[in-house]
Amino acid sequence: MNQKFRYIHFQGVFQVHEKYISVKSGYPPGVPIYIGKQEANNTTFSIIWYDDKNVQVLSHLDPDTIELHPDKKQITWIHVSGLRDIDQLNRFFSKLALHPLIIEDIFNTKGRAKIEDFNDSLFIVLEMVNSPEEEWYSQKINIIVKNGILISVSESGDPFSTIRERITHPNGKFRSNGIDYLMYSLVDLIVDSFFYALERIEESAETLEDKVLKNPNPEIVREIQSFRHDLITFRRQVWSLREVVMHLERSESVFLKDTTRVFMRDVYDHVIKITEDLDMHREMAEGIMEIYLSSISNRTNDIVRTLTVITVIFIPLTFITGIYGMNFTFLPGINDPDGHILIMSMMTFIASFMVILFKWKKWI
Amino acid sequence: MNQKFRYIHFQGVFQVHEKYISVKSGYPPGVPIYIGKQEANNTTFSIIWYDDKNVQVLSHLDPDTIELHPDKKQITWIHVSGLRDIDQLNRFFSKLALHPLIIEDIFNTKGRAKIEDFNDSLFIVLEMVNSPEEEWYSQKINIIVKNGILISVSESGDPFSTIRERITHPNGKFRSNGIDYLMYSLVDLIVDSFFYALERIEESAETLEDKVLKNPNPEIVREIQSFRHDLITFRRQVWSLREVVMHLERSESVFLKDTTRVFMRDVYDHVIKITEDLDMHREMAEGIMEIYLSSISNRTNDIVRTLTVITVIFIPLTFITGIYGMNFTFLPGINDPDGHILIMSMMTFIASFMVILFKWKKWI
Amino acid sequence: MNQKFRYIHFQGVFQVHEKYISVKSGYPPGVPIYIGKQEANNTTFSIIWYDDKNVQVLSHLDPDTIELHPDKKQITWIHVSGLRDIDQLNRFFSKLALHPLIIEDIFNTKGRAKIEDFNDSLFIVLEMVNSPEEEWYSQKINIIVKNGILISVSESGDPFSTIRERITHPNGKFRSNGIDYLMYSLVDLIVDSFFYALERIEESAETLEDKVLKNPNPEIVREIQSFRHDLITFRRQVWSLREVVMHLERSESVFLKDTTRVFMRDVYDHVIKITEDLDMHREMAEGIMEIYLSSISNRTNDIVRTLTVITVIFIPLTFITGIYGMNFTFLPGINDPDGHILIMSMMTFIASFMVILFKWKKWI
Amino acid sequence: MNQKFRYIHFQGVFQVHEKYISVKSGYPPGVPIYIGKQEANNTTFSIIWYDDKNVQVLSHLDPDTIELHPDKKQITWIHVSGLRDIDQLNRFFSKLALHPLIIEDIFNTKGRAKIEDFNDSLFIVLEMVNSPEEEWYSQKINIIVKNGILISVSESGDPFSTIRERITHPNGKFRSNGIDYLMYSLVDLIVDSFFYALERIEESAETLEDKVLKNPNPEIVREIQSFRHDLITFRRQVWSLREVVMHLERSESVFLKDTTRVFMRDVYDHVIKITEDLDMHREMAEGIMEIYLSSISNRTNDIVRTLTVITVIFIPLTFITGIYGMNFTFLPGINDPDGHILIMSMMTFIASFMVILFKWKKWI
Amino acid sequence: MNQKFRYIHFQGVFQVHEKYISVKSGYPPGVPIYIGKQEANNTTFSIIWYDDKNVQVLSHLDPDTIELHPDKKQITWIHVSGLRDIDQLNRFFSKLALHPLIIEDIFNTKGRAKIEDFNDSLFIVLEMVNSPEEEWYSQKINIIVKNGILISVSESGDPFSTIRERITHPNGKFRSNGIDYLMYSLVDLIVDSFFYALERIEESAETLEDKVLKNPNPEIVREIQSFRHDLITFRRQVWSLREVVMHLERSESVFLKDTTRVFMRDVYDHVIKITEDLDMHREMAEGIMEIYLSSISNRTNDIVRTLTVITVIFIPLTFITGIYGMNFTFLPGINDPDGHILIMSMMTFIASFMVILFKWKKWI
Repeated sequence: MNQKFRYIHFQGVFQVHEKYISVKSGYPPGVPIYIGKQEANNTTFSIIWYDDKNVQVLSHLDPDTIELHPDKKQITWIHVSGLRDIDQLNRFFSKLALHPLIIEDIFNTKGRAKIEDFNDSLFIVLEMVNSPEEEWYSQKINIIVKNGILISVSESGDPFSTIRERITHPNGKFRSNGIDYLMYSLVDLIVDSFFYALERIEESAETLEDKVLKNPNPEIVREIQSFRHDLITFRRQVWSLREVVMHLERSESVFLKDTTRVFMRDVYDHVIKITEDLDMHREMAEGIMEIYLSSISNRTNDIVRTLTVITVIFIPLTFITGIYGMNFTFLPGINDPDGHILIMSMMTFIASFMVILFKWKKWI
Repeated sequence: MNQKFRYIHFQGVFQVHEKYISVKSGYPPGVPIYIGKQEANNTTFSIIWYDDKNVQVLSHLDPDTIELHPDKKQITWIHVSGLRDIDQLNRFFSKLALHPLIIEDIFNTKGRAKIEDFNDSLFIVLEMVNSPEEEWYSQKINIIVKNGILISVSESGDPFSTIRERITHPNGKFRSNGIDYLMYSLVDLIVDSFFYALERIEESAETLEDKVLKNPNPEIVREIQSFRHDLITFRRQVWSLREVVMHLERSESVFLKDTTRVFMRDVYDHVIKITEDLDMHREMAEGIMEIYLSSISNRTNDIVRTLTVITVIFIPLTFITGIYGMNFTFLPGINDPDGHILIMSMMTFIASFMVILFKWKKWI
Repeated sequence: MNQKFRYIHFQGVFQVHEKYISVKSGYPPGVPIYIGKQEANNTTFSIIWYDDKNVQVLSHLDPDTIELHPDKKQITWIHVSGLRDIDQLNRFFSKLALHPLIIEDIFNTKGRAKIEDFNDSLFIVLEMVNSPEEEWYSQKINIIVKNGILISVSESGDPFSTIRERITHPNGKFRSNGIDYLMYSLVDLIVDSFFYALERIEESAETLEDKVLKNPNPEIVREIQSFRHDLITFRRQVWSLREVVMHLERSESVFLKDTTRVFMRDVYDHVIKITEDLDMHREMAEGIMEIYLSSISNRTNDIVRTLTVITVIFIPLTFITGIYGMNFTFLPGINDPDGHILIMSMMTFIASFMVILFKWKKWI
Repeated sequence: MNQKFRYIHFQGVFQVHEKYISVKSGYPPGVPIYIGKQEANNTTFSIIWYDDKNVQVLSHLDPDTIELHPDKKQITWIHVSGLRDIDQLNRFFSKLALHPLIIEDIFNTKGRAKIEDFNDSLFIVLEMVNSPEEEWYSQKINIIVKNGILISVSESGDPFSTIRERITHPNGKFRSNGIDYLMYSLVDLIVDSFFYALERIEESAETLEDKVLKNPNPEIVREIQSFRHDLITFRRQVWSLREVVMHLERSESVFLKDTTRVFMRDVYDHVIKITEDLDMHREMAEGIMEIYLSSISNRTNDIVRTLTVITVIFIPLTFITGIYGMNFTFLPGINDPDGHILIMSMMTFIASFMVILFKWKKWI
Repeated sequence: MNQKFRYIHFQGVFQVHEKYISVKSGYPPGVPIYIGKQEANNTTFSIIWYDDKNVQVLSHLDPDTIELHPDKKQITWIHVSGLRDIDQLNRFFSKLALHPLIIEDIFNTKGRAKIEDFNDSLFIVLEMVNSPEEEWYSQKINIIVKNGILISVSESGDPFSTIRERITHPNGKFRSNGIDYLMYSLVDLIVDSFFYALERIEESAETLEDKVLKNPNPEIVREIQSFRHDLITFRRQVWSLREVVMHLERSESVFLKDTTRVFMRDVYDHVIKITEDLDMHREMAEGIMEIYLSSISNRTNDIVRTLTVITVIFIPLTFITGIYGMNFTFLPGINDPDGHILIMSMMTFIASFMVILFKWKKWI
């Protein structure tokens, strides 16, 4: 894969330069308008009910038929993928009586990671990076917990399939834990996805450092700048992720039991680790630029040294030939048949002296 | 539009270097004196009363006839545009019994964004950027809330016309919410206006980065310095904006109901986003200077390499011609008819050797 | 006015490098010794009593006759100018029963700005810059509030004459406010004086930036370093000023009524503005050094380019002349009467080719 | 020992770039999987019981036979070395009823230092550096305190042998203090081990600084970058160590008595000292890069000066020889037998003048 | 005094690179071992009892005979100088029943400044710089306050002789104040001693700045790096000093009465001043390196300009001599007796043109 293309592509992943105001401006706040990539994916709904005894999974169902006030003993997890069908989604969200700002944020795929703790509902927005097998992209994930129902919204695909699988295992931890453990599992998976991004950044950093040490060319400045772009963008994502997880771990939210809070602290430790690794890469990236600058200086030094050595050796010799090229009728030794041998010896001596001098100065 | 002119103009927008002391000094604090652009705009008053059932709008009215203690069930919003008629404005503000420092601040169009929570009145000062269609400028907006009346003061124009329009819609959110929702809407519109400034800054940053990567010339240093000026100035505005919004969101002010505070948190999120984008642009701007410096070094390197290659090839050759230019009566091969061919071959060989050496060193 | 002289002079204003230890060492703490400029100014006392009805002003009076326990309904403000007469001042301060450390600090004109809130007395030390009409200097101002008496001490002159004038106006704010409003007015005037310093710094910054962009010469490094000295020194003064004003605004001091605290908040806003402007100038000063460094690089680049262009054009030509300068009996075309025309054409062609090449490379 | 190899090796010690996600992903949290070096060491158990009267030590025992609810009056310290036998370890840990996350963390040898205070158990993870006699490496140490039992887990070897020895001394402090003093002693030994790392870093810093001052060559950039890598990595370890020790000192944990807390404060002082020394080395490392860059500039300056001196001396002389090399039939003095002497004197004069000029300019 | 030697010596003063672990390791914590310079000074004890009426001073007494539970009305101050006689000191300290960590710290002359507030005793460790008359060194001072006794321990000499003298004055402040005033006086003297160090640093900074502006040579890099070493080391000492004094001023320690706390605040102000001055010197030191780098660039620029001017003037001239040096049988004007005059005029014209061009470009 082409390195440079990669950077540019990567930048496209974490959307920085949202110009969403031009889209939104003129509308009052709280109106759901889709902001994001050109075309949203098709909307599909899947649902899973489970308690310690039973599990029931339904895919591709009609959201209008979903019963949102189920048996309180069961945990309901509805996953929504794709944001194209705004009307259908609006009907669905209105059944949940969500705050208008939540609905607005769900449709805006370019906001920051954040957490909102309304007293009756918890709303989490996070960026998720895809697994490394596929091409590189990221998507917004929304998690809403309200009335014992967890709704997760992804821009596309089914990023939480492994968790759904684990729930169906009869004696797994999900079955004996509450809805907060499900929420924790989703957040944990999202945080883990950032390690993939970190690995790619790390690879880029090492590639860059290698390049700059072995073969520094001006093109690399562009790559270093691109890499910085990526680091800055990624860091912003990580910092807002950190805020969300810290808030989850520290807050006295009713949506998190103490037994689950211990796990959330573990997730927070992972986020700290990501932050620290990222800071390390930033410091190294600064070092790469310095190495590049020093390598340019070194090469100029090399080139100038060559110029100097050759010039300084030949200039006095050329001067001597100039003397004997003068058209004076009399010049010492000019008519001596061995005159040229004498003068050539002198020149050889001068040249040798210069070479020895430069060797001593370690210039050659 | 000329880029350089743009920067200079932009700097004029966010006024940094106020030399207002020379105007003010000698007057006691609390005396209203107009500080700002050469000439203030004409003063006009417009008023809107509304509750959940009725709306009444009056434009260009005489402020002396405004009834400031209206029916408590209605929300009164008075918008004042232009600060020229100081006497009239003073009469108007004195009817409201505002604190002398508020009145002083209203007439000073060059202060920082700030919020003052007197117990009976709330006073907000913010900078607002105009919409991108027109030429680029910014103006001070003052918002005062007291006794169920909201007074907004702008230096010129009618920046809140969209909000007035929305109020007139019969079933809009304004009609069912209090005066704090109106205040929030104004602040939201002002914060959104900063995204326009951010877009312009972003464009400038990209233009600069492109220029410096493609065609770095000394002129660009001036532009980078200008761009920094803009960033620093804009950041100051954003930081004081941030303080104001944070204070609004966090304070226990009686002027903000909890339902509206949720919206204010959303505005705060926007401000954070602006701050982060700005920080990103700052880091990139530092990178641009580094790229420029490295590009100068690179070009010097290129030039010196050319000089070295040509000099190092020709200096030994010229030395050889010098030898055979000497006027010795005897020089080896001097009288040989093919002597010059031999010597030219030797010179060709030396030149070829040098060229190969330089190719190997990747200097040519 | 000579710019360089100005910097050096300026540095003398905010005294940084106090070597006062060598003066103080050996004395126990709390002993009043004059530390400062070579010679202290003559000591003069002036007093003003006022309440809402009456004002009485006395100048150049004998401090030993001052009655320090006057009618409680009146505000007493004693201004002391000049610190030469230590004995007299000591007698005067001992009548007030001030803490020994206050008296020591009054005589030390080189300390930091600070505020001490003893329970029965408030002690403020601030640096004050003179107004811009005169030559540039700064002086220490001490303000002591105790038992309804305000004593202000200046090193020289009468910096508060405008306030004394305003007090004498019958219906001014002073007459209806307490001693805390008087204290606030003094602090406000001192803070305003810093804007003058800021204006001078701003001018210097602009001058430097202009110079470095138009005519960068090595001398400017010295000026930039001087300017930095000034900024650092000034920033220290501003930071200690900020601490004092912040303490005044935030503390629960009994010496400040709530109505006056609002004004003090306004003063604090001014100090913040000064701090921000100063930070901006610091960032710009860093930029100036970078611009200078890049301009040196650019000029080296320019010079080397000239050298290269001329050398690279003439070296091959000189080589050709060298060939035909060789003393071989036979050289192609040597005896051709038009030989020199052919060879000159060839040389013209080579030179033209080089010129075109350099034009294409944008080196000339 | 080869310096460069050392750096690279050192980097291997503090594992930064864990790509453990690819190992973990797919497993639910809380499942113990060994993450670390290719092969874990053999698992061995040793146990020591002691109180103020008796000590009993058992090595290489079968963990399945360990009685984990011993006489409450005795302190039980079990040291586990090597993590190969996962099943056996799992059986052992399950007897202690540890939290699943603790067990997971024990098997992950690449996590951050951390402390978890469950109400009934304390869990500490720290990195420990080996003593300087052997080859350089670091290992994870886990310390668990629960029900009057302290379990320490090391990746290999017996790092706490000195403490075990001291416990067996009849009147040592261990015998009269509780289990918290034992925990403190382990942490103290681990913190002390960081001084070894610090000494090695210090040596590297001094070696680098010497090199760069005496013989700066491009190779050193690589070494500086390596050194930075080490500093960054080490600092991360120190910072997480600091967090753990600070938490231990400040928390109101029931696992630490006040008498022991005083000792823990002493340990914290040591950690602060390590942090400060490290910060100092970082600042010095930045200085080294600057020195290197300035030394390149200096050397280029030296070389260019040599080039200039030689060229500027000989170019005018060569021009003069050129003049008298022209084939004009008449040139002044060309036929004078002493013409060449005159011209050579002139050339000597010019050369001497140039030399004196350069001496005066301090170029030679 | 040789500047360079001074730096190196200075570094020896504030001991940074303690390798004390190799000495301590293997011993349990709390065992007093002397860590420090090769040889400790002889131990001497002197004692002073005083109250408002009487003073009694005893020097060089036998510590075993000191009565440590004297008349409660008197203040007992024991000064111990020199740490050689460890046994005697141990006996003495054990009579006071000091915490083992205090005793350990007393014998470690390389630790950080710190303060420990045990409930019954206060322990302060500070670095003290000697007065400027003598050669430059620093030493550790320990101050212990317990049971109305103050013990001060210095590595050598009698740094507090001035205080002892002042105590003997019948009506001094010491006599009417308690033991906390004595402690304050010692700390004040130690803090004041840092101003001496600051003055030396300031001198070094000014010397360096002068050197770098007037005569920048590569040797100065080494000095700048040395100076930075000193600043970093000194700053560490100042920061730990600051922590101690801040703790003393802010804590609710029973060892400090409110009347003395006011004085302690004054000491804290001095420490802040030292910190600020130091920060200023650091910023200036960074500036010095920049100036040096810019001066190298400038000198390279100067040299290259000279090279260019000379080369560019003579290369075309030499080319013309080359043309007329060619051996063509016919060259225009070659046989004209005034040909050489014409050609020389042409060359003069070209040279003049070049000189004018360079003057215009301000290269000469």
